[in-house]
Amino acid sequence: MSARVLIVDDLFPNLKLLETKLSLEYFDVVSAMNGLDAIAICEKGLCDIVLLDAMMPGMDGFEVCRRLKTTPTTAHLPVVMVTALDQPSDRLRGLDAGADDFLTKPIDDTALLARVRSLVRLKAMTDELRNRALASRDLGFGDPLAAAAAETGLNASLLIADDRRASAGRMAAALGQSHCVEVVCDPHQALEKATEGSYDVALVSLDFEGFDGLRLCSQLRSLDRTRTMPVVMLADAGDRARIMRGLDLGVHDYLVRPIDRNELVARIRTQVRRKRFAHALRESVQASMELAVTDGLTGLHNRRYFDSHLAGLFREAVLRGRPIALLLLDIDRFKTINDGFGHDAGDEVLRQFADRIRAHTRGIDIVARFGGEEIVVVVPDAGLDGAQQVAERIRERIEAAPFTIHGGTRTIDVTVSVGVAVRHPDDAGPADLLKRADVALYQAKQEGRNRVVAAAA
Amino acid sequence: MSARVLIVDDLFPNLKLLETKLSLEYFDVVSAMNGLDAIAICEKGLCDIVLLDAMMPGMDGFEVCRRLKTTPTTAHLPVVMVTALDQPSDRLRGLDAGADDFLTKPIDDTALLARVRSLVRLKAMTDELRNRALASRDLGFGDPLAAAAAETGLNASLLIADDRRASAGRMAAALGQSHCVEVVCDPHQALEKATEGSYDVALVSLDFEGFDGLRLCSQLRSLDRTRTMPVVMLADAGDRARIMRGLDLGVHDYLVRPIDRNELVARIRTQVRRKRFAHALRESVQASMELAVTDGLTGLHNRRYFDSHLAGLFREAVLRGRPIALLLLDIDRFKTINDGFGHDAGDEVLRQFADRIRAHTRGIDIVARFGGEEIVVVVPDAGLDGAQQVAERIRERIEAAPFTIHGGTRTIDVTVSVGVAVRHPDDAGPADLLKRADVALYQAKQEGRNRVVAAAA
Ligand SMILES: [Mg+2]
Ligand SMILES: [Mg+2]
Repeated sequence: MSARVLIVDDLFPNLKLLETKLSLEYFDVVSAMNGLDAIAICEKGLCDIVLLDAMMPGMDGFEVCRRLKTTPTTAHLPVVMVTALDQPSDRLRGLDAGADDFLTKPIDDTALLARVRSLVRLKAMTDELRNRALASRDLGFGDPLAAAAAETGLNASLLIADDRRASAGRMAAALGQSHCVEVVCDPHQALEKATEGSYDVALVSLDFEGFDGLRLCSQLRSLDRTRTMPVVMLADAGDRARIMRGLDLGVHDYLVRPIDRNELVARIRTQVRRKRFAHALRESVQASMELAVTDGLTGLHNRRYFDSHLAGLFREAVLRGRPIALLLLDIDRFKTINDGFGHDAGDEVLRQFADRIRAHTRGIDIVARFGGEEIVVVVPDAGLDGAQQVAERIRERIEAAPFTIHGGTRTIDVTVSVGVAVRHPDDAGPADLLKRADVALYQAKQEGRNRVVAAAA
Repeated sequence: MSARVLIVDDLFPNLKLLETKLSLEYFDVVSAMNGLDAIAICEKGLCDIVLLDAMMPGMDGFEVCRRLKTTPTTAHLPVVMVTALDQPSDRLRGLDAGADDFLTKPIDDTALLARVRSLVRLKAMTDELRNRALASRDLGFGDPLAAAAAETGLNASLLIADDRRASAGRMAAALGQSHCVEVVCDPHQALEKATEGSYDVALVSLDFEGFDGLRLCSQLRSLDRTRTMPVVMLADAGDRARIMRGLDLGVHDYLVRPIDRNELVARIRTQVRRKRFAHALRESVQASMELAVTDGLTGLHNRRYFDSHLAGLFREAVLRGRPIALLLLDIDRFKTINDGFGHDAGDEVLRQFADRIRAHTRGIDIVARFGGEEIVVVVPDAGLDGAQQVAERIRERIEAAPFTIHGGTRTIDVTVSVGVAVRHPDDAGPADLLKRADVALYQAKQEGRNRVVAAAA
């Protein structure tokens, strides 16, 4: 897959060498010779991945990486550090700064390309989501990127699938310090657990006795339930071809045995952050969309949601020949509350009114603010008797205890009138149902309020 | 990349052969021996791509493909038809049914895997977007999938980058019947045009005189402005390795010279549909999020949007040492309109009120419904004089012509009072600004309405 690669190195020959290699592979190459230029390019959104020299005068690569990974606008960019010496201490410094991987000079071409391709592909998967989340931020919904960049990557739920018990035990002990870890020795059982549970990251051995671990990796990457969960391979150093193969299958990272404890901890943390980053983006888009169907004051669904869902529930009831009931609930003499105690008190009453109704309805019922002081409840599968019982129970709960206003310093008595209607075989549509509930509500008010009236069946 | 492949063939040995090949490459394989079973698997969302035998008893592959591609829940699945004979008529039937590509039996392994990988990767790019769009549908925002599946793929804007003028001319003529086509002979100019224009699909020759067409393809696939636009390669039959390479770079499809006119038309149409499908998903998520900051009655921004953006604009004004003004506009004696002519008339007046204000403000101003019959306008960079002029102009336009109510059958006179305030150097925050505008509005009402009052600077 094509992408824009930013190469950062303080030495021109190094830049040129990498540029030539990547350009031959049809990557678009951008370059920078110091950290500040590199950061500026990243912040302008002009690249998809960064190959970053560790040793540079002025700001070194570790610091550049740390800045990129803690800045909301650049935290999503994969960073591969390039180091002259393969010192564990260097690797760890880079990983701690948030780097996604390392390459040692002189750079092995196969490893370079496999890594760049894999990281670019993984990034592309969330780019679209990130763009939607950015659009939601621009509409004023708060900044999901800031939250995601601040994510620690700790306290995750991890699954280790490895039949080398001693090694698995050591990993579990190391990771158990900051995560909740489960070890499974059987690959089939691991797949089962992974699809049933909700792990943040899975670590998968490539060397099960009599089973190809890559198969488990590929299954985890293709099943609906697990495809957004990062997978990290555990491999022997000699198994290079299969590691490359795994990256090609979409596996996120790998660790080579004997596994360095610090590197293990750092790499898993990076994957946890990646997982949670995507999750935060998804949630933010979802939350923005949900706000559009939510009433700001009560937190109930709004009229828009009600209108669009009543039609569907009504149609379904007709198709399945099932009953469906609708309750219209209106606070009695609400105007006197507003006029006598102020608008804020009116709002407090409305919120508590909504809470009590919510407490006495089910998840499958639709509870929506219908307008001013009116709330509508749709009860699927309920006949007139059942609906009346629900209505009566709510009416009692409103009357039973006074409402608090003025921040809890005062109480007032509130009652509600309820109109109930159920679907008739000759109803043309949901509007008929709504109309009858409205008439019943009017009658409840006429007959003295604080009562339930059901429309004639 | 790993994925779930559905293989459909009425002959068991054919199924097994493909299953073995794909399984060796770590794909998860599902299989079906007839069209109805295949459709059921697709509808349950259990696969990512379909390899479909053309010739089957009962429902043949062409019909299965047509059904999958016209059903909203399955239209996004890539379908590769597998035919025993490579007849142009077969290919065309399949393409017309919406197939993404063909493979001829006996199946060439390299071509099979390159194609499956490419289509699976392209699908993965929009999966996340599709999931968000499905979530928006579940919240009641209408069904973007239905619209996308009904998309014809016609009337698109196409760019042909090819220096073989005669061939390019023939393609332009064929495609010009249902699209708007532009031909560019120079690859550099093509890149420029593509990044500046908004084409639905680009066709790129791999055989420019003295230029590697794959380079243009990869640039189009990696630049921000063009990466969501499908790219189709034009290649010589002998150029198989580069075609595979192009698919690997993320190019969507290819045509082999001499180019069959019908196949050209059909394949481009498929790409146009793909592009518009993704676009429709994006728009639907965006529209759902925008609804959350839109006032349902007037179409203006709502209070939520105003609250979240005023703070930002105010902060920016402080940082840049620039003025910023706020106008609060309230319809005079709105209650008498509601009481005298009914709530519907009140709504009509509010809508026209909003329209007139919108007509006299700029795109960079924030115009939001503040509450009941009150609208707020934020004018960045405006001082007291400028803001008063805007307010006075709006006041005049409201008074100048009567409003229509009762569906245009009646008119009434409406006036507005406006409170204006600008930022003070010692304002602690936007609330101070808002407060002064509110006081000024109150004063305008006290002084007899239908007037603009500016808070003392
Ligand atoms: Mg250096
Ligand atoms: Mg057959």
